[in-house]
Amino acid sequence: MNQIHIFSPATVANVSCGFDVLGFCLDTIGDEMIIRKTPQKGICISKIEGYDLPFETENNVAGVSALALYNDANPDFGFEIEIYKKIKPGSGIGSSSASAAGSVFAMNELLGKPYNKTQLTNFAMKGEALASKCEHADNLAPALFGGFTLVKSLAPLQVLQLPTPKDLYAVVIHPQIEIKTSESRAILPQEIPLKNAITQWSNVGSFVHALHTEDYNLLSDSLNDVIAEPYRCQLIPYFDDVKQRALKHGALGSGISGSGPSIFSLCKGLDSAEKVKTAIQNVYSQTSIDFEIHLSKINTEGIKIL
Amino acid sequence: MNQIHIFSPATVANVSCGFDVLGFCLDTIGDEMIIRKTPQKGICISKIEGYDLPFETENNVAGVSALALYNDANPDFGFEIEIYKKIKPGSGIGSSSASAAGSVFAMNELLGKPYNKTQLTNFAMKGEALASKCEHADNLAPALFGGFTLVKSLAPLQVLQLPTPKDLYAVVIHPQIEIKTSESRAILPQEIPLKNAITQWSNVGSFVHALHTEDYNLLSDSLNDVIAEPYRCQLIPYFDDVKQRALKHGALGSGISGSGPSIFSLCKGLDSAEKVKTAIQNVYSQTSIDFEIHLSKINTEGIKIL
Repeated sequence: MNQIHIFSPATVANVSCGFDVLGFCLDTIGDEMIIRKTPQKGICISKIEGYDLPFETENNVAGVSALALYNDANPDFGFEIEIYKKIKPGSGIGSSSASAAGSVFAMNELLGKPYNKTQLTNFAMKGEALASKCEHADNLAPALFGGFTLVKSLAPLQVLQLPTPKDLYAVVIHPQIEIKTSESRAILPQEIPLKNAITQWSNVGSFVHALHTEDYNLLSDSLNDVIAEPYRCQLIPYFDDVKQRALKHGALGSGISGSGPSIFSLCKGLDSAEKVKTAIQNVYSQTSIDFEIHLSKINTEGIKIL
Repeated sequence: MNQIHIFSPATVANVSCGFDVLGFCLDTIGDEMIIRKTPQKGICISKIEGYDLPFETENNVAGVSALALYNDANPDFGFEIEIYKKIKPGSGIGSSSASAAGSVFAMNELLGKPYNKTQLTNFAMKGEALASKCEHADNLAPALFGGFTLVKSLAPLQVLQLPTPKDLYAVVIHPQIEIKTSESRAILPQEIPLKNAITQWSNVGSFVHALHTEDYNLLSDSLNDVIAEPYRCQLIPYFDDVKQRALKHGALGSGISGSGPSIFSLCKGLDSAEKVKTAIQNVYSQTSIDFEIHLSKINTEGIKIL
């Protein structure tokens, strides 16, 4: 195999209760990438469509993660990367992670799979760090592992694949405003009340238990964020309206996707998800803010070969 | 049935990563209680053996929790309680919880089980509050539900029963020193670094996942406390020695039981637990501090009828 065409999905990090550790993978929105072997050594980005991103390998997240794997594998040939970017950078649904994970996933396939998913996540973290100034894996893990993931630790990297209840759907609305991840980070306090932290870790524990037991009511009860949302919600116009509307129309929970501005809702069943989709798109329809909205089953596979 | 004789077990709260929310139940140490119906209405404590505790119903944790249930059930008879106290008050293995949970469990049996375990926990919290000045359920829940429990929330009370891996044993050493729960609470900061909180909730999530998947390595990796232990360990002489010795001899994890001074270790298999028991009792044997040590399978049943 000399060439591979992949779908690299968008992902939702944090998932309300799991700030910096939980994430899940979407199915209906993602980048496409074509990666092929080249006789000349090194990594070359030959095509970028969709959004205006740097072609220089070391300035492109897909390029930087590709280099990390390439330098480790040290093959006697090179790779050429074509990126068909569908996920808008800065959307809060793992745009940079899709690029960073996609290139290493594809190269690993072309090399005969010498690396496991945790190793791929490690390489991809180098690319992710270019975009967000720090290494993290809460979007990379669901893109590479699929389903729900918990990043247990970064050093050493330890990713847990959590079970995905079969009737779970996500609705993600992306208001077309810009929030910088750095701004979204800076707004959070460095110290938090112990009381709130206890609430958060009881929710993380019950969320994981709910995934294992397919307990949708408990899942719903666990989807609360007392840490980041109270600060970050002010950066997203109409956040409260969207959330209230989603819950009123049957969503199990609703919160900020990653550092925003996208807002995710989790729903039991397609019918419920469609109702929630209609309800929340009506919020932004009545404003001057453009938006995109995605309805997706949870993608339990992660990146897919097309 | 006019009389019931029960075993009300000791319990370990916090379990390193789950400050204020996690707990598990022991099998080889606990109080015994005899509760019988009486023609005269009200709650009367007729006998207390083992430790010197108040006989006045409203000053005794078993009495206060009994009254909470009694006032709700409002039967046309009363109850008499005999307490054979084996768990030393202030040991950090749920002495007051065993009393508070025992009386309501037994009364519920004698009344024909009108209440579920969550309701019993709610009544018992009134008794627990007498001992610890605040309502909490992290020892009550494992005593009443058995196995590992997660107190998801207190208002409304929501207790989750987590799975118990079948080869799990606990070793609990109780150095005979006194630490007041209030002192143990006061030593903790009210605000904690967000970074540490994230570590803690990733550990709670992975701990719950490890219980579901019977992954003993992950269980071991999750048994870390970056919140309470760094402060509370100084209240327990030789804590570090005991912990290091336990880990060196194969314990999956080791930490402070509740607010101390007892120290628990979790072990895979009886052989491992026996090695850990021998290793850690050697620590206190070489000091002037008296101690008790208990080795127990995890009690998945909770309170037992004898």
